[in-house]
Amino acid sequence: MNPFRFQNPTALYYGKGQIEEYLAAEVTKVGKTVLLVYGGGSIKRNGLYDKVVGILKSAGVTIHELSGVETNPRLTTVHKGIDICRKEGVDLILAVGGGSVIDCSKAIAMGVKYEGDVWEIYARKGAATGALPLGTILTLAATGSEMNSGGVITNWETKEKLGGGSPYTFPAFSFCDPENTYTVPKDQTVYGICDMLSHCFEHYFHPTEHTPLQQHLIEAVISTIVENARFAVDNPEDYNARETIMYCSTMALNGMINMGVQGDWACHAIEHEISAIYDIPHGGGLAIVFPNWMDHVVNVNPQRFANLATRVFHVDPTGKSTEELAGIAIEKVREFFRSIGAPTRLADYDIGSENVERMAEQAVRFKPIGNFTLLGKEDVQQILKASL
Amino acid sequence: MNPFRFQNPTALYYGKGQIEEYLAAEVTKVGKTVLLVYGGGSIKRNGLYDKVVGILKSAGVTIHELSGVETNPRLTTVHKGIDICRKEGVDLILAVGGGSVIDCSKAIAMGVKYEGDVWEIYARKGAATGALPLGTILTLAATGSEMNSGGVITNWETKEKLGGGSPYTFPAFSFCDPENTYTVPKDQTVYGICDMLSHCFEHYFHPTEHTPLQQHLIEAVISTIVENARFAVDNPEDYNARETIMYCSTMALNGMINMGVQGDWACHAIEHEISAIYDIPHGGGLAIVFPNWMDHVVNVNPQRFANLATRVFHVDPTGKSTEELAGIAIEKVREFFRSIGAPTRLADYDIGSENVERMAEQAVRFKPIGNFTLLGKEDVQQILKASL
Repeated sequence: MNPFRFQNPTALYYGKGQIEEYLAAEVTKVGKTVLLVYGGGSIKRNGLYDKVVGILKSAGVTIHELSGVETNPRLTTVHKGIDICRKEGVDLILAVGGGSVIDCSKAIAMGVKYEGDVWEIYARKGAATGALPLGTILTLAATGSEMNSGGVITNWETKEKLGGGSPYTFPAFSFCDPENTYTVPKDQTVYGICDMLSHCFEHYFHPTEHTPLQQHLIEAVISTIVENARFAVDNPEDYNARETIMYCSTMALNGMINMGVQGDWACHAIEHEISAIYDIPHGGGLAIVFPNWMDHVVNVNPQRFANLATRVFHVDPTGKSTEELAGIAIEKVREFFRSIGAPTRLADYDIGSENVERMAEQAVRFKPIGNFTLLGKEDVQQILKASL
Repeated sequence: MNPFRFQNPTALYYGKGQIEEYLAAEVTKVGKTVLLVYGGGSIKRNGLYDKVVGILKSAGVTIHELSGVETNPRLTTVHKGIDICRKEGVDLILAVGGGSVIDCSKAIAMGVKYEGDVWEIYARKGAATGALPLGTILTLAATGSEMNSGGVITNWETKEKLGGGSPYTFPAFSFCDPENTYTVPKDQTVYGICDMLSHCFEHYFHPTEHTPLQQHLIEAVISTIVENARFAVDNPEDYNARETIMYCSTMALNGMINMGVQGDWACHAIEHEISAIYDIPHGGGLAIVFPNWMDHVVNVNPQRFANLATRVFHVDPTGKSTEELAGIAIEKVREFFRSIGAPTRLADYDIGSENVERMAEQAVRFKPIGNFTLLGKEDVQQILKASL
């Protein structure tokens, strides 16, 4: 494996009753003025908003609000949040929502401490110089943003969707209560599952040598998702299934299963270009792109794919070549996405070939993408065409 | 799974060259006066002592020393360390060694900030009130102490060996360079492997319901140990094997694979009683006790043992009952310990039945032990007798 430094300081709370018991203490440890960030208002409908506001008010906390954070959070919304924090002297940002709300909050947290426009950090023209403390209450199992330092912001002026982060943007604390995901609609549950599984794949298909434990750990998360996803999709109020899926989403991207591993991330880069133009759900885009990426790169290391077949999908290897097993693994991945009702083609979102070249060009505009193998514009175009 | 709070703030450095590049910065971030704690002097023979002292001196650090820490570190040694820290105004304790040295350093770190005798913390008569900052340079893959907050101290006056810790005793940083384990003798390498595998078993055999991801993560570490141990045992300078085993030892006990799981720990409690009297290597004692504990408790949850057979040892389940598979799993565990040259009976250490009753009594003196199932004095006696 590669030499690495790992540190993840987030205090992670899992399970029901944790918010009631520990939220006030975690918040007031940091300060008394909070910016509450949330999305379209589902937390008002399901009662979480009232619960959180009640707890904060009882603890003597002053609350400012930024609501309406978009599914693909926009730079303009980030700017609004930065303004509020500066004007009101906010001590702590409390993100109540899914990855979008948390990612937006991370951008705000960095932006408050950054002299220029925070977009510079995402556009690789500047580095974060600090961040306001951030806490999260997770309501959607998907991105893992509750326990890592990264996030994705969309700039609609430039039609760019870029990831960024800093050592300052790990949440100080995150509360993950599976009951807060009961009201997540079926399609969002599915997209979340596609997202977390894609994070595992991005780690799994890497070029780093001698990583037996990392491979097994990643297989552990993939197996658990594959074995349990349908229960959360079929029965939204199955506590154990919601908990398992939520926990998989956190573990898929908190750095614990992929230390010393150089992940791939080409599919994420490609998907970002799709949703930067079409604003489709991130998880849906990933479910479409990933199997086609796999077809495109399988010959780079067929054994890795064969391992997926035998260790995760329990395919009997007797009489099958490595290449055959690799092909079966990709079909099993397609089958899994289909089984939970994920989209399988860009046509499912009425996306045609009109922007394929532009998206491919954008995806590689900094440099070729990927680490398992490098993809140039032509590769990305082929993968996108196969996804139509 | 159980509701949980998880936080592990240790900055973990893995791989060769990390000490040279980052040690000085990590130390001087904390202070300029260091207590260097180490064991019997192997670090002087293999050059690590000179390297570390050179780096610290170049960074302008004042070094005090505590050497000769025992395999089962003694309270008297801890007291010596506390005296030095108080007298010399030490800012940071730097433990260079294996689990014994690190555990001793944790006790010193707590003791410096504790008004009474630090033993009270281990004897459950007091709680830590703080700790000096602690850094580690690991030289033996075994206990995982480099990335957790616990440790074990032996009080020879009372013939007690007790575990303890606090939220203050996570190392601030730990450097794990596999090359620093090249000179570990074969028997110590084996004991370390027995220890890390036992930690996995303590997590794996738990009574907590609905923990599919935790089960798979623990299986991932067990599989990696089982598949790679022999390479490190057979070829002490195999960098990749040493790295894999070292990394397994860290991941086995840093809390990442067992969040929300109530582990068992009966075998550790039993082994502590054996080595409190006979001063045998901890890992050797565990290798002897664990398979016999398994025989004693297998009927509590045969399916868990059967999973171990099929998922880790790849036993074909066709035509076998759960109970048969469970029995095979235990034999596979015995076989693995034997294959790496671990002891299999207490007789290997010339231990007879003379103290069986006393050890059993001591093991349960606070209360019955274990969580997978509760063991009373009679159970412990049976397990010890089967281990003779």
